[in-house]
Amino acid sequence: MSNLARIAITGASGRMGRMLIETIGQSDKAEVTGAVERPGHDWIGQDLGLCLGGAETGVTVTDDAATAFAAADVVIDFTAPAATLGFASAAAETGTAHVIGTTGFTDEDLTALSAFGGDIAIVRAGNMSLGVNLLTQITKQVAAALGPDYDIEVVEAHHNRKVDAPSGTALMLGQAAADGRGVDLNEVSDRGRDGITGARKQGDIGFAVIRGGGIVGEHDVIFAGPGERLILRHIADDRGLFARGALTAALWTLGKAPGEYDMLDVLGL
Amino acid sequence: MSNLARIAITGASGRMGRMLIETIGQSDKAEVTGAVERPGHDWIGQDLGLCLGGAETGVTVTDDAATAFAAADVVIDFTAPAATLGFASAAAETGTAHVIGTTGFTDEDLTALSAFGGDIAIVRAGNMSLGVNLLTQITKQVAAALGPDYDIEVVEAHHNRKVDAPSGTALMLGQAAADGRGVDLNEVSDRGRDGITGARKQGDIGFAVIRGGGIVGEHDVIFAGPGERLILRHIADDRGLFARGALTAALWTLGKAPGEYDMLDVLGL
Amino acid sequence: MSNLARIAITGASGRMGRMLIETIGQSDKAEVTGAVERPGHDWIGQDLGLCLGGAETGVTVTDDAATAFAAADVVIDFTAPAATLGFASAAAETGTAHVIGTTGFTDEDLTALSAFGGDIAIVRAGNMSLGVNLLTQITKQVAAALGPDYDIEVVEAHHNRKVDAPSGTALMLGQAAADGRGVDLNEVSDRGRDGITGARKQGDIGFAVIRGGGIVGEHDVIFAGPGERLILRHIADDRGLFARGALTAALWTLGKAPGEYDMLDVLGL
Amino acid sequence: MSNLARIAITGASGRMGRMLIETIGQSDKAEVTGAVERPGHDWIGQDLGLCLGGAETGVTVTDDAATAFAAADVVIDFTAPAATLGFASAAAETGTAHVIGTTGFTDEDLTALSAFGGDIAIVRAGNMSLGVNLLTQITKQVAAALGPDYDIEVVEAHHNRKVDAPSGTALMLGQAAADGRGVDLNEVSDRGRDGITGARKQGDIGFAVIRGGGIVGEHDVIFAGPGERLILRHIADDRGLFARGALTAALWTLGKAPGEYDMLDVLGL
Repeated sequence: MSNLARIAITGASGRMGRMLIETIGQSDKAEVTGAVERPGHDWIGQDLGLCLGGAETGVTVTDDAATAFAAADVVIDFTAPAATLGFASAAAETGTAHVIGTTGFTDEDLTALSAFGGDIAIVRAGNMSLGVNLLTQITKQVAAALGPDYDIEVVEAHHNRKVDAPSGTALMLGQAAADGRGVDLNEVSDRGRDGITGARKQGDIGFAVIRGGGIVGEHDVIFAGPGERLILRHIADDRGLFARGALTAALWTLGKAPGEYDMLDVLGL
Repeated sequence: MSNLARIAITGASGRMGRMLIETIGQSDKAEVTGAVERPGHDWIGQDLGLCLGGAETGVTVTDDAATAFAAADVVIDFTAPAATLGFASAAAETGTAHVIGTTGFTDEDLTALSAFGGDIAIVRAGNMSLGVNLLTQITKQVAAALGPDYDIEVVEAHHNRKVDAPSGTALMLGQAAADGRGVDLNEVSDRGRDGITGARKQGDIGFAVIRGGGIVGEHDVIFAGPGERLILRHIADDRGLFARGALTAALWTLGKAPGEYDMLDVLGL
Repeated sequence: MSNLARIAITGASGRMGRMLIETIGQSDKAEVTGAVERPGHDWIGQDLGLCLGGAETGVTVTDDAATAFAAADVVIDFTAPAATLGFASAAAETGTAHVIGTTGFTDEDLTALSAFGGDIAIVRAGNMSLGVNLLTQITKQVAAALGPDYDIEVVEAHHNRKVDAPSGTALMLGQAAADGRGVDLNEVSDRGRDGITGARKQGDIGFAVIRGGGIVGEHDVIFAGPGERLILRHIADDRGLFARGALTAALWTLGKAPGEYDMLDVLGL
Repeated sequence: MSNLARIAITGASGRMGRMLIETIGQSDKAEVTGAVERPGHDWIGQDLGLCLGGAETGVTVTDDAATAFAAADVVIDFTAPAATLGFASAAAETGTAHVIGTTGFTDEDLTALSAFGGDIAIVRAGNMSLGVNLLTQITKQVAAALGPDYDIEVVEAHHNRKVDAPSGTALMLGQAAADGRGVDLNEVSDRGRDGITGARKQGDIGFAVIRGGGIVGEHDVIFAGPGERLILRHIADDRGLFARGALTAALWTLGKAPGEYDMLDVLGL
């Protein structure tokens, strides 16, 4: 019998679903034992491997999340808020841990999610890379150490299909900087700078956005002070980064007590 | 008798005026023979060297531009549009060449300036550094060579006292890119990106703006295509750069026929 | 009957071979009709698609290059110098164009290769990306435009498995800079700077090397002058870049006269 | 009577001496009350202000350090090791605090310096900027947090007159990274990479060096891991940065007990 962690994937046919399946396929610690798609999807009832253009795997794609989850130790889920709430409910019933990379939740969504943290281990993070989570920590720390004569700017670059600006990760970094300074990000954000802006207001946290080509994701936090700059930069070199972070989180949940966790817990930061 | 080029400086007490005076003072090819300030300024009637906290120079600061210009071969002028128009008129009368670093002219201003190009050599440029002018050229060339699947972004960073965004130099680079592609910059500019923007529109030229600390001036032109990026970057390392460019332009005017010139002429690009 | 260009791939099981097969599979202008491996390789006699873990394709992997080439319009070859010389001979016999991404040829090898240029179209390039080839051109041009007070440095970063330093592309860029200046690269190269080096020698072209993680490939050509820097940078964002460049070259050979070509010809630069 | 801190400057005519005098002149918390040069220097016996081409200041340049120090609260000293040892002895006699930016001390020199720490407050640092000292701290912390699959590289860029490579600050950052990992920097340093190097050795800390133009000083610490990079960067934007750091250190010594301190003490990091 296999000692591999059994993982179910939601949104199996999507860009992130495929990346997760590929990443887990290369791991010697985990295997995909379930693949979920929405009712009516072409893949339902088919073999997952054949759907992906490869060899047969014995995993049949299903729209019955509860059954797929029941046979798994943990589900990895990068879908959309409404779907994720349903999956959390199913996971709580089957006692399966839930790793959530979905973004865009409302406060109400988050309250609803919290309820399931009493039953199962939930790991939720806007960005699952080790580097970005570490960057968030040191951004807070540096912002606390440097005085108001160090202007803070967050610059991000992404591919040309991204629809929102600044990126969620850029906002998370801006939040970390605001926390470090003990200010409210909403009151100091300077976004979309254009035209006759006047001199920069001291204490502002500025955001700048670059879009083009296939840039995976780059973030700079700039502290520009008198005569010097300290720049904290993260570069995602390949898209598999986020899938590997999710797999790390999934393996971490094995044997964990129910509760809500984030990547700082997973990474021990 | 000295063989040094005789230069008059307008706005002598300002940041750029002082930098020009310092730069010319270090040159073995030119000397400051005139210093102009606005009527009522504290320095009027005083010795320029003493005003600057140094030794006496024999140059008296004046509000009479025509007299200062008459004793000079060329005037270097980084002031404001209205003042510069007056100085151009005075320079045309005295037959003194006019190097103009002033920015923010309207189309009417530029028409008025052109009239004086019949009398004297006028060099006007938004940025007097060799590097930026060369960058403008290669930006146009690369934009012409790369197809529409290369997204063009212009990113600039300046100190926290700058009041306009994007910088004049960034707009000049965007114009060069648009020229290279044969499109109208106004129709493709994407500025102040913020919020739910949707996917990037192919053919757009994007601008992003960073402000902080004492950054002298940095410009990136990014061509982000399928799987690769080509980035053309200029960094101004010290503020004297622009003063040295203006001095190069001033020395170049000696013996030149009347006409309107730019830095590409001066630099032979 | 298909109008797709028929392409044979050498070294089909290798990293670059697989990338080429994947890239061509996604193209609507070409198809893989032949796959060559060395005698004794496991894949010989097997279906290429099955070897790659996918669906059957009808292409059988072979060690008989001539037969595979005879059924193709063009062969794409990223192998090793000795193998490539043999493939060139086979391609010349079958009248199949030859796109060569192999590197490390001796001068004797190149002379031998040239002989086949009388029979078929050969495209050979050390780097098949559009961006790098364009960068090479503008590096030469900028080096020619800027005087000796602009110090030239080439900086490159690659993944931690790369065994040579500086990269072939960095040396190609250094050569372009030397050509622009009209100097011999061997006489001005400054590599491996370490210890008490003394002040930088004017006219030198310096190289600096970064190795780490999975960096695909980044190159900077820095022109550092008085008070300013002009930096020409190329970033390879994904490894498919070079396979796509090779496919572009392969499609370009269709209907071309015999001769030796490089990517500047292909790209019309 | 003035409440300004009284500061003596050694090596007053040198590049750093002039910068210190200019920086203190712009401060409203300190004044230059003594200026020391070596015996036989042209400036000895002259008024400091006149020597600098400005107005008279009443401070006479002297080669008698003890007398200059006796009338000061603190001396700022960026000279050479032998000179600095003599100045430390004089400062210990007169009970004047000693801020030392001199570099290149041997272990014997440092032992000798330590003896004076019993008499006066001594602040010694290889780099007096807040940003670099903070960068050193977070480098150590990040190196401790990231595992061995994150390759560490230190890259630095300086002007073309610098004679040593890598910079002292780059080595300090490498040391911080080694400390964070609990390894001996000497055993893992990879400097001057050139030629057929083989694959990067896991655990190495690499150094790369860029020299050109007037670059004030830039340092990158790169952590290149699987699919991502975290880069910690410091840019010195103007040379006054180090003079301001020294002034901060000098003001900090006022009222401090005798002892040896560094910038982490001064900055409260």
